[in-house]
Parts: sequence; structure tokens; C-alpha cells
Amino acid sequence: MLFIVGLGLADERDITVKGLDAVKQSERVYLEAYTSLLLVPKEKLEEFYGKEVVVADREMVEMEADTILEGAKERDVSFLVVGDPFGATTHTDLELRARSLGIPVRVIHNASIMNAVGACGLQLYRFGESISIVFFTATWRPDSFYDRILANRREGLHTLCLLDIKVKEPSLESLARGRKVYEPPRFMTINTAIEQLLEVEAARQQGAYSPDTLCVGVARIGSDTQRIVAGSMQQLLDVDYGPPLHSLVIAGNTHPIEDEYLRQFSVAAAAGEATAAAAAAGQE
Amino acid sequence: MLFIVGLGLADERDITVKGLDAVKQSERVYLEAYTSLLLVPKEKLEEFYGKEVVVADREMVEMEADTILEGAKERDVSFLVVGDPFGATTHTDLELRARSLGIPVRVIHNASIMNAVGACGLQLYRFGESISIVFFTATWRPDSFYDRILANRREGLHTLCLLDIKVKEPSLESLARGRKVYEPPRFMTINTAIEQLLEVEAARQQGAYSPDTLCVGVARIGSDTQRIVAGSMQQLLDVDYGPPLHSLVIAGNTHPIEDEYLRQFSVAAAAGEATAAAAAAGQE
Repeated sequence: MLFIVGLGLADERDITVKGLDAVKQSERVYLEAYTSLLLVPKEKLEEFYGKEVVVADREMVEMEADTILEGAKERDVSFLVVGDPFGATTHTDLELRARSLGIPVRVIHNASIMNAVGACGLQLYRFGESISIVFFTATWRPDSFYDRILANRREGLHTLCLLDIKVKEPSLESLARGRKVYEPPRFMTINTAIEQLLEVEAARQQGAYSPDTLCVGVARIGSDTQRIVAGSMQQLLDVDYGPPLHSLVIAGNTHPIEDEYLRQFSVAAAAGEATAAAAAAGQE
Repeated sequence: MLFIVGLGLADERDITVKGLDAVKQSERVYLEAYTSLLLVPKEKLEEFYGKEVVVADREMVEMEADTILEGAKERDVSFLVVGDPFGATTHTDLELRARSLGIPVRVIHNASIMNAVGACGLQLYRFGESISIVFFTATWRPDSFYDRILANRREGLHTLCLLDIKVKEPSLESLARGRKVYEPPRFMTINTAIEQLLEVEAARQQGAYSPDTLCVGVARIGSDTQRIVAGSMQQLLDVDYGPPLHSLVIAGNTHPIEDEYLRQFSVAAAAGEATAAAAAAGQE
């Protein structure tokens, strides 16, 4: 049996009891680690599972799928995916290949940013199409997301912006030299995403959004250090959200219940919180 | 502390390890049971938790919120929600009331139909706004979902249709007599949803969809008896999907990878599967 197990969002205890059972009974355990990542290192997982975890990067999943699936017809193998197994599309190949080999597959679901973003107080059924924002480079500044935000906003819908993560990317120079050297991992911040969004609006000028548009920045959802800040795009530009992972929501039309819920996360409230925390720290 | 704990989709083992910890350390445990339900009875949860579980219906959460929150400043109380805590909006009041009373709140996420529907092979980031379809009555046939399906389909997006569930609804006659008698629980089937959709299309005639539109029926997602069937709306009309819960996806434009994945769920494949199962059963 191939178990494809969602790990949820933050740490080793976000796995489901069903998922943990699958891992414990598996002969080999792989961790997909290039579309997202947990907020704890793999060693924490190994300690919690009492098992070795093999990190499977993109190359391994694509090139060595048969190694991963070896013997899975008779014995159990777990393939762990951060979030829900269907949040990313990249493991679909592995699943289809398993099925074509006659290996039974069992998917164990979990939370992903696609539903946990509801924690910001904007109602999930009022979200339109999600978008991804990738790091701009000097020569590559893809802005196809702009039309989709425009379409969502015209319908009054919220837009979840998934922000780029780069894990184990070969550097361009190393590719040119024919020997791969990997760049350090990079994670797009909410701040960078807003900069890029505003640059695209300035170029396109169709009014999909503006510096005054209500947005919600969400960082490390589901963890003890989760941070949610609501305010205009301009106000959110200079907030420090802390370590990865970050996502951004561009609000559409909001309902009074959404407004009431968002109030606790407003930039002003967040600043008050920070002041209170500083005061509390000062008292210690 | 008030823990708001997502239970996931199918059974008692879909809770996360973090959620289970919260339940075990709680003095009182409530189960929200009117927006969705698990596929196992509450007794299964009680046995697994080793704790009494109080079913909280809509009236209780709205009228007796203070009873639920009593003492939660000093001790732990868990409020369990099927799926993810933010899949439904109905518990938001409870959370806001807890915060206004100075009770710390901790949300523990899980899978919900909003992300687990990815199991059908249509990619989550290609879904537009979700809709809800309620049971038509002789006098009340609300069809506002039609415009939203139309908008999604024009953008080539998939539409998740959440199907009505009626748990503990007072019967109209009993309300007229001034003494509430509750109707037995009812759950909309994919078949009924399609009938209602086709009726609305026949009346509106704007071509949001037709009997030929590709759809995917999903039943009991995340359980051992999960059933996913892909085909035209007409083809799906007569399929037996088994017991609740059911949801329906109306496909937008599909990508070849989505088509490949869907193939394993096609009506023809499903019929073949049923035949194979019947043959296997016959051999026993």
C-alpha cells in the first residue's frame, strides 16, 4: 500500500491519528519537500515517528519514482506531503504510476492553506480562483495573476495569493557550468508580494486593486506563532510578519461578520498588541 | 482555553494528534452537529477519547454559549467541528464571544471538503466560488447559485456544490402547533442536486451548464467507502453513490493532467469496477 499522507501546516503533531498509524506501519517513509514545508525540521518528525524519513526532492520524485514505490504492492510505504495531499499537483504522477503498477493507494487528508486561510475571518465560500506569485527577476516578471485578481474583484470575491518558495533550486551560474550547485532556500514575504503586486498594477492600470485595497497578511497559520494582520495594501507593506511561510489575501466585498472578525487583526490592533507585548516584556 | 478542533472528514481517527491532545486535556467536550457530520456516531468518538461528548445543536450554540464557555478562562473546553473549524461560519459567534470574555482561543485545523475535494483530480487552484444547493420545496426554489456557476464557467473554473443537510429541523406543522417536533435528518444526494440544477437551467436557459457538462460526484470523501464518479451531468443522474455525505463538482475547462486523473473515475470505469466487484463477490 502506498499511503499519501497530509501533514497539515505547522509541526509534527498536526498529522492525523490515521496518518500516524500509516507512518508507523510503513517500511519506508518519504517526505515531499519542494512545494511547501513544515515549520519544524525533519529530525523532529523522525523523533516523533520513531522512524527514518527520506527527504524526496523534485528530482527524486520524478526520476526515482520506482525506487519509492519498490515493494509497495506487498509492504507499506508512506509518502508525506505538507498540507493536504491535493494542495499541490506534483505528486499526482507518483500516484498514477502506483496505480498503473497495481499498487493500492490510500490518501489521508489534512488541512492546507487552501482551507486554513479561513482563520483570517474571510469566509471560504467567498474566495474566487487562487493565484501564485513568483519571485520577479531582472528579466522575468510574470503577471498573469493580474487578470485573475481583476476577475475575482469584479465578482466581489477574495483572492488567496500563494507566495513563491524556492527549495533546492540550482543556481543559473552552476547550470551554465554544467555542475549543479543549489541556492539557499528562499521564501517570498508578504512585503515582497505587495511590492510586486503594486508594480504590476502601476504597469497595467486596470484598477484590479490599489494601495488602499483591504488585504490580510497571514504567516505561519496553524502554529503557535501564527500572525494575521489586516489593513490596506499600503499599510501591510511595512509590517514585520516574522519567519516563513507567508500568504496574502486580497479582499473582495466583505460582509459585516467578516469585518467584525477582521477587526481583531487590524494593523492598529496589531500595533497595540505589539506595544502591550513590549510593555509586558519591559515589566519582566 | 477554548480549543476549536477540526475533526476532518470521516471517522474518529481523522482528528490530529494536536487535536486529540486538546480533547484529552479538556474538562468538557462539545460537538457542533448541525452544519456537517462525521460518518461515525458520537459514541465512537466518546470511546476513542475516553470522554463524554455533548452534542451542541444550533439552538444550544446560539442560546447557551455562556454554558459552553463557563470556566474556560481557567480550564480547558473543546468545541469540535467536523471538517475544518473555518469550513462553516456558524461557530464564529462562539469564538468572538470567548475572546470578548477574555478566554484564550486556540484553533486546530483539519481537512474539510473545501480542500479534500481535490481528491477528485480537479486542481484546487482552478476552482471558483463555491455554492450551496438547498432542498427545493413546493414554494421555495432558490436558484441564486445559477449566476455564480455561470460566472465560474465563463472563466473556465470548476464549481464545488455543497449539498444541503437538514439535521434537527422542526417540522412546519409542529411549529404551527407551537410545539417543536423534529424531522428526521435528511441529506441531499448528488442525484437530487443534479435534478434541481437541470430544472434551474431549463428555466433560466443562459447555458451555465447542460446535461452534457462534465461533472464529478464525490461521496464520503476520506472514508474507506469513498466514491468518486466522473461523467456528464446526465450520466451521473442515475448513479447510486451510497450513503451521505455527497458533494458535486461542475467542471470548468480541464487540463490534460486533470483529464488523465479523472479517467479512473469515469462512469464507464466505475461500471467496470462494479462488475468486477460483483464477479469477485460471485466467486466467493
